This record gives sequence, structure tokens and C-alpha cells, in this order.
Amino acid sequence: MSKLRSYIHEVIFEAETPEGKAFDVGLLILILLSVLVVSLESIQSLNEQFGPWFNYIEWGLTAIFTLEYLLRIYSVRRPWGYILSFYGLVDLLSILPTFLSLLVTGSEFLIVIRALRLLRVFRIFKLGNYLAQSQILLTALRASRVKIVVFLGAVLASVIIIGSMMYLVEGNTNPTFSNIPVSIYWAVVTITTVGYGDIAPVTPLGQFLSAVLMILGYGIIAVPTGIVSVELAQAEAQSHTTRTCEHCAGTGHDWDAKYCKHCGELM
Amino acid sequence: MSKLRSYIHEVIFEAETPEGKAFDVGLLILILLSVLVVSLESIQSLNEQFGPWFNYIEWGLTAIFTLEYLLRIYSVRRPWGYILSFYGLVDLLSILPTFLSLLVTGSEFLIVIRALRLLRVFRIFKLGNYLAQSQILLTALRASRVKIVVFLGAVLASVIIIGSMMYLVEGNTNPTFSNIPVSIYWAVVTITTVGYGDIAPVTPLGQFLSAVLMILGYGIIAVPTGIVSVELAQAEAQSHTTRTCEHCAGTGHDWDAKYCKHCGELM
Amino acid sequence: MSKLRSYIHEVIFEAETPEGKAFDVGLLILILLSVLVVSLESIQSLNEQFGPWFNYIEWGLTAIFTLEYLLRIYSVRRPWGYILSFYGLVDLLSILPTFLSLLVTGSEFLIVIRALRLLRVFRIFKLGNYLAQSQILLTALRASRVKIVVFLGAVLASVIIIGSMMYLVEGNTNPTFSNIPVSIYWAVVTITTVGYGDIAPVTPLGQFLSAVLMILGYGIIAVPTGIVSVELAQAEAQSHTTRTCEHCAGTGHDWDAKYCKHCGELM
Amino acid sequence: MSKLRSYIHEVIFEAETPEGKAFDVGLLILILLSVLVVSLESIQSLNEQFGPWFNYIEWGLTAIFTLEYLLRIYSVRRPWGYILSFYGLVDLLSILPTFLSLLVTGSEFLIVIRALRLLRVFRIFKLGNYLAQSQILLTALRASRVKIVVFLGAVLASVIIIGSMMYLVEGNTNPTFSNIPVSIYWAVVTITTVGYGDIAPVTPLGQFLSAVLMILGYGIIAVPTGIVSVELAQAEAQSHTTRTCEHCAGTGHDWDAKYCKHCGELM
Repeated sequence: MSKLRSYIHEVIFEAETPEGKAFDVGLLILILLSVLVVSLESIQSLNEQFGPWFNYIEWGLTAIFTLEYLLRIYSVRRPWGYILSFYGLVDLLSILPTFLSLLVTGSEFLIVIRALRLLRVFRIFKLGNYLAQSQILLTALRASRVKIVVFLGAVLASVIIIGSMMYLVEGNTNPTFSNIPVSIYWAVVTITTVGYGDIAPVTPLGQFLSAVLMILGYGIIAVPTGIVSVELAQAEAQSHTTRTCEHCAGTGHDWDAKYCKHCGELM
Repeated sequence: MSKLRSYIHEVIFEAETPEGKAFDVGLLILILLSVLVVSLESIQSLNEQFGPWFNYIEWGLTAIFTLEYLLRIYSVRRPWGYILSFYGLVDLLSILPTFLSLLVTGSEFLIVIRALRLLRVFRIFKLGNYLAQSQILLTALRASRVKIVVFLGAVLASVIIIGSMMYLVEGNTNPTFSNIPVSIYWAVVTITTVGYGDIAPVTPLGQFLSAVLMILGYGIIAVPTGIVSVELAQAEAQSHTTRTCEHCAGTGHDWDAKYCKHCGELM
Repeated sequence: MSKLRSYIHEVIFEAETPEGKAFDVGLLILILLSVLVVSLESIQSLNEQFGPWFNYIEWGLTAIFTLEYLLRIYSVRRPWGYILSFYGLVDLLSILPTFLSLLVTGSEFLIVIRALRLLRVFRIFKLGNYLAQSQILLTALRASRVKIVVFLGAVLASVIIIGSMMYLVEGNTNPTFSNIPVSIYWAVVTITTVGYGDIAPVTPLGQFLSAVLMILGYGIIAVPTGIVSVELAQAEAQSHTTRTCEHCAGTGHDWDAKYCKHCGELM
Repeated sequence: MSKLRSYIHEVIFEAETPEGKAFDVGLLILILLSVLVVSLESIQSLNEQFGPWFNYIEWGLTAIFTLEYLLRIYSVRRPWGYILSFYGLVDLLSILPTFLSLLVTGSEFLIVIRALRLLRVFRIFKLGNYLAQSQILLTALRASRVKIVVFLGAVLASVIIIGSMMYLVEGNTNPTFSNIPVSIYWAVVTITTVGYGDIAPVTPLGQFLSAVLMILGYGIIAVPTGIVSVELAQAEAQSHTTRTCEHCAGTGHDWDAKYCKHCGELM
């Protein structure tokens, strides 16, 4: 019995065996299918025509996901650890809406929470060649964490200050700058160069201030890019240079080096 | 006869000889002319005035391209290999619409497929100085392939999750978020900072979520740039290390290497 | 008495002691609360409902900020130096509007100037790990100052030239390009890729010119990013070379230096 | 007499002497003033009120610029070389429109050509510290020239191909995609992430294609940034490392090094 449990655990939770890989890929396809069905169901015309069919597929997928959820609880060593983990809660929340829709109409769209299960896609990236590369990406992002917090603090302060100013400048003549939160929202839309255009300055002073904000924001965009580039270069370099020559203790060898480039000895 | 075939082959398929270069440049000009004519034909007012003239030029160009297509089949060693190749299919598809327009009216606009022939522009880049530089660009892009797939996976998951959430938040009050696929389209428009503004949040919660998405997306933009910068720096560096070991002819040595990293001999 | 003064000074102006840190974090929370209240007050519907409450909170916060301002003047060694400094003026300006609103109605929105106090957030960044990282960011930005001025000069010239041209091209047929300042504003919106869409070219020549501007601007975006990346890499590298010469205590040595570059002694 | 000529030449054409610097800065201010006056004149309401005044200032500035133009011709060694140079033509074109406005009404707005004279701003950058820094920027841009041409070729081909496709997909149902040139214009607006929103896809297939274009364009944005970053790093590095030790011929010294870091000898 314990053998069955550990076999199930290996298939569901790990991705080293062929069955484990197949399970992960299959699960991802079912999640994508589920998201696709909810997406199509939200289109009025399609829902009127194929409504019942969407319903059948949804219930089928929910049955499969429920079974998977129960098997996960059954096979894991510490069930509560899994149930209360982030993935455990997402797994539970992604099967509840379908059952809830029996009691409350309209709640079936909460099923889009199932999209969060797509985060499992990162498990697939753990396979083979992808592991090392995503490791480098993660190392770079983690190393630039503090710098990015400082940067976001600066962006946030700018956006609040300039947004408030624009409310004073435009507020009276321009109905789209109706209050300060909306003006701050406009400042975010502008500084990130998204620029919807639903809110846009009309007074000459407002347009001048926006132009200054845009050109400043243009320079600011350079900062996070610079941060990530530098950290990525370092993470990349470190992943190449963990080898040290046993004879002269020289470092900086390429991963494919057979002989030490400093003393010429076999590595 | 075989001499004529190999001469035609050299002119049409290669770009080393003066005739080959001239042929490639001439062909590119004819393709651009053809795209220009179809573009102008699509403008209602010009079509009414110069319609017949556009027609004559189109038939003339189609005749030339048909001749070129037949010569390619004639001169290449393995005709089916060419016909079924990507460029072979594009060459065929780019002459068919003109003939088809005799049977089906309106099909003459399928001729825009001819624009795909512009991809031949990359053959021109194979000339002289451009070859080495585009090689470096390609090497960098190929090296960052895996990292970019990981990155695109993360972007895709974010876009689906946030798009679905926005449908729940905005769907009831905002008719532009009419269904989930459209909301996901909006999320792509926003995260890439394109920001058309045809779909835009109106509820305070929706605007807050969008602002978060924008600032996050702002940081995310930094990642591919960092990836390409780093890989480009490496590809550039490798193209500079032209030092070859005299003993084993191995390449890829650092500029400060004293011993060959492949065979261990003094350089 | 002097002991109390220096204690107050330590708590209010410095962040090394636990009390100093607590004061800074508490002040930041009060500033954010104050900005939040003014923001909510600017929303018509909320103001009608909770107007008096907003008023009470505002007066309470103004009282606290006034007390803080007086304590700062009391505890600092050179009061006029503080009063006339940037932060001193911001502190004063951020308490005046509430008192002014007793005399002039409508002036209470000048309170958004209080948002400028958010700049104090940078004092928080002086704590612990954040100090070194923001130092690196600042060093990089300061080092690239000259290059960024050159770059902004080029952007400004382009924007004025192209904006003026577009007025000539579009002015007659397109009412949105009503005068030259507005056309220059449009050029800024376009070159920074914000693209509101409230002003957009409609003539073929205007659209062609814009397309050229966009693709050029696309390449131009690369320049500040490149500048910051390079300077950041250098600032980062310098912050890593903690090697100090034992003879002259000079710093800034490369990792591979064998002799001190300042005094010439073996390291 | 020849002495006066060479003195005028020094003041007008060079920027090494104090008079030369003052002349350049003064000229730049007059050009900016002139652009400002034409800009304000283009605003209907201001023109009605201050029209005559604008006229007087314009004639005054034109008189000054005409005098400057004549002095340039007089003092330069090879007058025709100057007259036919780029700057010579711009100088001539920037004084003609005012005289032309006597004959043809409405031609006074051609005066915006004067904005091209702003390019002289780059002469100011030749002063002091700015020279070295703009040299580094120029070196980096020149070195990446070939790569940027390859990149622009790829962008152009993509834009034509995808623009033509979108005409086929959207053309029938969406009046904003009225012909192929407009569709190509839309593709440029989208791939550069400007996104005005005056032209936007409405069919599901069109929106799907745009989303693909945006995400691809998102990755493409990384390429020029990477190119410039790498070239900038190299140009920067080269500007630091032109010093070679006279004793051991070692390179890579910092600009502030007093002793060779390889052999310890005085440099």
C-alpha cells in the first residue's frame, strides 16, 4: 500500500520519471483546455449556442481536478502542509466554483481562478535545459531585488506628486481629471508609456507638465533595464566560473576548458 | 547545356558573383515595386483612376516572377527540395493570386502574400560586412532562445490570469470588457505598453489593478533587454577572440590565456 | 535642557537609533494617510458623505505636522539653515494650506503639496542594506549625467523640428494639429512611445513622417538604456573592489592588480 | 583688413575663445526666441492680439540672421563651400521665408525651417567636458551602424508583411483598416508600442494577430538596446585604456593610475 502511495507521489509531485513528465504535461493541457472553455463561455453568442456542451466539459474537468486534489492529499507525507501551501489553496479554489455554481447562479465565472493553476507551467521549466537558464534569470532578479524596490519607491513618489499637481492644473477645465486617484492613475499610465488616451491633458500648462513627465519617464525606463542587464551578466558569469584549477588555483575557466589557461595543467 | 544550368543556378541562387548580386538587388526592387502597386491599388480613389495601369504592371511582374520560378526549378539540382522548401512555397504562393483573380473576383488582394518574398532581403545582408554582423545578432538571439521561452511563458501566464481577473472586476459595468478573450487581449495591449485605449478600465478597482499591471510590466520589459544585451556582449566577445592554438587549432581562447584550454600547450 | 534638545534632534533628524527609525516610519505612514485623505476628499461622492470626517483627520494631521515642524526648528543647531532648505520649505508649505482654507475656500486642495513630503521616503532607504544599493544607483546616474544632457539636447531638437514640420503638413486638414506648441507636444508623446491618440496624423504624408519618427524614436530609446547599463556595471564593479593597498590605503584596484596603482608597492 | 576677417571668422565659426563661446550661446538663444515667436504666432488667439509685435520681432531677428549669414560668407575662406554645405543651406532657408511673406501670404510659417538651426546646439556640446562624452556616444552609434541597418531591415519587412495581412483580415469589417498603406502605418504604430488607438483591430482573428505582433515587438525592442549597450561599453572601455606601461607594455590601466598595476613601475 505504501508502495502505491509513493508511486502516486512520484507521478504527481515529481517530474524526473517518464510518467511524472507525462502527468505534468497532461495536467497543463487540461488546465489550458479548462481556461479555454471558460473563456469561450464568456462570449455571449457562443454561450447561447454551445452552453450545455461547455457545462459538460467543465464538470468533467472539475471531476478530474477533484480526483487529482484528493490523490495529492492522499499521497503527500504531510497533508496539511500541502493543503495550506500556495499551490494547495489554488488547487482547492480552482475546483470550488463549479460546485458553488449549483447554489449561486453566476458564480461559475469564478472558475477563472483556475488560470492561477497555469503557474504550474514553471514546473515544466524545471525539465532539462530550462532549469539552468531559469535559475540564472531568477538569480539575477533576486540580486536586483533591493535596487528594484528603491526604484519602485522613486516611481511611486513621482507618480503621486505629479498626479496631484495635474489635478490642481487640469481639474477645473478638464472633466477627465475628476479627482486625485484618477490623476495618479493617469500619471502611472503616462510614466509607463502605456498612454491609453482616455485621460489626456488639454490645458497648455498641463500638456507642458506631461511632456516633462514623459521625457523624464523615458530616462527612468532605462534604470530597471540597466539593473537587470548588469545582474544578468553577473549571474551568467558566475554560472560559468565555478571551476578552479587544482594546481594554480586560477579561476575564470570556461565550462568546456580541459586544461588550465593559467598554468597549462590538466583540470 | 549543363553549363547554362549551372550558370543560371549561380546567378539566381548565389550572391558571390557580380551577376548574382545584381540579380538579387534587381529582384528585391521588383518585389518592392509589386508590393507598392498592390498597396496603391487598395486605395479606393487611386484604384478608380489608375486601375487598368495597376493591372498591367501586376501582370508584367507576375510574368517575370513566373519565369524566375520556372528557372529556379530548372536550374536547381533537387527540384522537389526547392519546391517544398519555405522559400519555394512562398515563391509559388506569390504568383498564384494573379492567375486566381481570373476565376474569382476579389482574390487579387491575396497578392499581398508577395510581401513574404521581402524575407529575401536577408539574402542581401549576406553580402560583405553585413554577414559578420548579422551572424553576431543571430548567435545572440539563438543563445538567448531558452531564456526567452521561459520569459514568454511567464508573460503568457500573467496575461491570462490578469485578463481573466479584469473580466470579473470590470465585466459588469464596462461594456468594453465584454468577454475573457477580449480581456486577455487588453492585458497584452497593456503589458507591452502599446495602450490603444479602445478598451480601458473605468472602475476604481480596475484602474488600480491596471496600474499594478503596468508597473510590473514596466519591470518585466527589462528582462528581455537584459537577456539580449548579455548574449550580444558574449557573441561579440567570441567573434573577437580569433586566437587559434598552434598545436590543436582549437579556438575560443580568452585574450589573457597563456595556455591552450584544449590541449594544454603554451600559446 | 540641551540633553532633551539633542535627544529630539537624534529622534527627528537621524535614523540610526531604534526611536529614530520608528519616528521615520511613523512619519511616512502619517504622510501617506494625509495624501490618502486629500485624494479621497477630491472624489465628489465621498466628499459629500464623509466631508466632516475628512476635515477632522486633516486638522489632526496638520496639528501633528505643525508640532513636528516646530520641534525641528527647536532642536536643529542652525534653524534658518533648516527653514530655508528644500525640505524645510516643503515642510512649511505642507502645513500652510489647511490654515489658509480658513480664509480662502477651495484652497484646501493645495494640501496635495504635502505629497512632496513623500520624498522623505529616500531617508528610509538610508537604512541598512538599502544604503549601498541606492548609492550604486546614484553613482551610475551621476556618472551618466553629461551623456544624458547630450541625449536630451538631441531629443529636444528633434521634437521641435519634427513638431514644426508636422504643423506645416497636417495643420490645414487636421484640426488637432491646431498650432506649433501642440504639434511639439504631439512629437513628445510620439517619440516617447506614450501615444495617447488624442492628436494623430490623418494625411498620408503626415502618417509617413510619424512612422519615420516612431522607428527613429525606437532606436533612440536604446541610448539612455545603454548609458545607464554601462554606468551601472561600472559603479557595481567599483563597489566590489574592496581591496585596499597596505602601504598607501588607496582603493579602487582591479581584481587582477599585482601592484598598487597609487604608490607602486606590491599588494 | 585680413585681420578683421580672421577675427570675425574666429568669433563666428569657432568656440575656443570667450567671444566665440558667447557668440554661439547668444545665437542659440536668438534661434530659440525665433522658434518661440513663430510657435506663439501659430496660436490663433495670440496672433489676433499680438500679431504686429510678433511681426516686428520676426523682422528684427531676420535682419540679425541676414547680417550673420553675410558675415559668414565674407569671413569664410571658401564661400561656396560654406553656401553649399548643409549648415549653409539651412542658414539661407531660415531667412528666406520672412522675405517671401512679402510676396506670398501664408508663407511666413515656412519660417519653422529655422528650427533646423537648432542643430547648431551640437556645436555647444563641443565645449569642455561634453566633447569627450558625446564622442563616446557617437563612436558607439557609428560602431553599431551595420547591426542597426540589419535590424531596421527586419523591422521593415515584418511591418509590411503583417500590415498587409491585417488588411486582408480586418479590411472588410473594420473601416479604419481602409487600405494597405494605412495598415502598414498601423503596424509601425503597434510594433513601436506607440499605440495611438485611432486604428485598432476589432475582429477576434485581428486582435489575436495584433497580440502576437505586440509580444514579438516586445522582444524586438530588446535588440537595439542590447546593440547600443554593448557598443557603448566597448567605446567607454576603449576611452579608458589607451595608456600602455612603458616598462612591461601592459594595458588596461585606469585613467587615474600613477603606477603600472602589472610591474609596479612609475607610468
